[in-house]
Amino acid sequence: MLSIVVEHIFLLVIVTLISVLQNAFFATKVEREGKEHNNKTAFERVSCANRNCMDSYPTFLAVMWCAGLCLNQAPVAFAGIIYLVARQKYFVGYMGQTSQSTPGYLFGKRVLAFLILMCIVGIFNYLLLRYFGSDYKDTMEMITNAASALLLIP
Amino acid sequence: MLSIVVEHIFLLVIVTLISVLQNAFFATKVEREGKEHNNKTAFERVSCANRNCMDSYPTFLAVMWCAGLCLNQAPVAFAGIIYLVARQKYFVGYMGQTSQSTPGYLFGKRVLAFLILMCIVGIFNYLLLRYFGSDYKDTMEMITNAASALLLIP
Amino acid sequence: MLSIVVEHIFLLVIVTLISVLQNAFFATKVEREGKEHNNKTAFERVSCANRNCMDSYPTFLAVMWCAGLCLNQAPVAFAGIIYLVARQKYFVGYMGQTSQSTPGYLFGKRVLAFLILMCIVGIFNYLLLRYFGSDYKDTMEMITNAASALLLIP
Repeated sequence: MLSIVVEHIFLLVIVTLISVLQNAFFATKVEREGKEHNNKTAFERVSCANRNCMDSYPTFLAVMWCAGLCLNQAPVAFAGIIYLVARQKYFVGYMGQTSQSTPGYLFGKRVLAFLILMCIVGIFNYLLLRYFGSDYKDTMEMITNAASALLLIP
Repeated sequence: MLSIVVEHIFLLVIVTLISVLQNAFFATKVEREGKEHNNKTAFERVSCANRNCMDSYPTFLAVMWCAGLCLNQAPVAFAGIIYLVARQKYFVGYMGQTSQSTPGYLFGKRVLAFLILMCIVGIFNYLLLRYFGSDYKDTMEMITNAASALLLIP
Repeated sequence: MLSIVVEHIFLLVIVTLISVLQNAFFATKVEREGKEHNNKTAFERVSCANRNCMDSYPTFLAVMWCAGLCLNQAPVAFAGIIYLVARQKYFVGYMGQTSQSTPGYLFGKRVLAFLILMCIVGIFNYLLLRYFGSDYKDTMEMITNAASALLLIP
């Protein structure tokens, strides 16, 4: 039974795994800075960056899995990868700056908005299928596959 | 295959989606307060409220999904909505107060307790079904549907 | 339909439930310390311990569920229990110390590494099954069952 399930989620699992490894990388950075007691500002900076990343992590996971379950895993996993790249950039940018101007609290807004949209589309499609019997899943998947490429535009 | 799964979880997905939108609302508040550098107390207050909400968010998601998968999605989704309302009240109440007395660290305790209870009932029911062959699922669902209405009592 | 699913995840649900109860225990500690205004250091200490635990909680949940879905729930649930014990020790150790030396930011690294490894093995096994038609699931499960016992070594 389970291999049928795994077939529909294995890309999501891979993206989750990569995000977990990234979390471990962030946490190691915090751990290392915390042990060097001579640099207070650097520790605060890396700790703040890590906390901001962790604050939005459950939201990202929830949206990604919902969108992946409701619609199609391929574009969702692709968007997830792009989110992870944006997060890496945010974290490195947060640490590297020595001036007071830090990047804001939020990042990856576009990717999250795209995932939320796909989630809504998936639910809507399911309700259409249930109450009206019309299935636009193939069309939806084609459109979302194409739309996910738009995320590459910087 | 997936549409069979979606049939059993689409209410949970909708509640998750609403909670994500609420998270985005909270994060936007923090972002906006962080940019106005003239008001330190307000930023700390909204940041603390956001952090307390985010701290309990994974717990809420985990309990809600477990309860929804093990038992029945309708009362669970209803309890989830009530939790989101309680969270909104908590957040607004945290920001609005100017005196030192803030609402405590915890909120929505009753809803979470109800969800944990439903989760235990679901697991218990599954074990009964597996080892004794007696299925009380219909009775359980009726009782939990009725019990979820009790959450409306303030 | 759902009882088939529950059969494959009920151990994971039980571990998740225990972790949620542990979270509630941690949060109650924070709540109680926050109300006693006379002890600032103790509150900071328990709040910091709680925050470190909560920071890694979504990561733990994500890895545990992925590994449980991809491979086999029994060793994964066992590793989850060991992680919860490690977390309890970490929390109590964080609170109890009065000297400046606190345990580090990370804990339960070995368990998380084991879960990540199992997740990778599960994905790899699925890909082998899909593209080469060779199924090593039984061997994998036997090995992971044996390997999970190694986690008990302190």
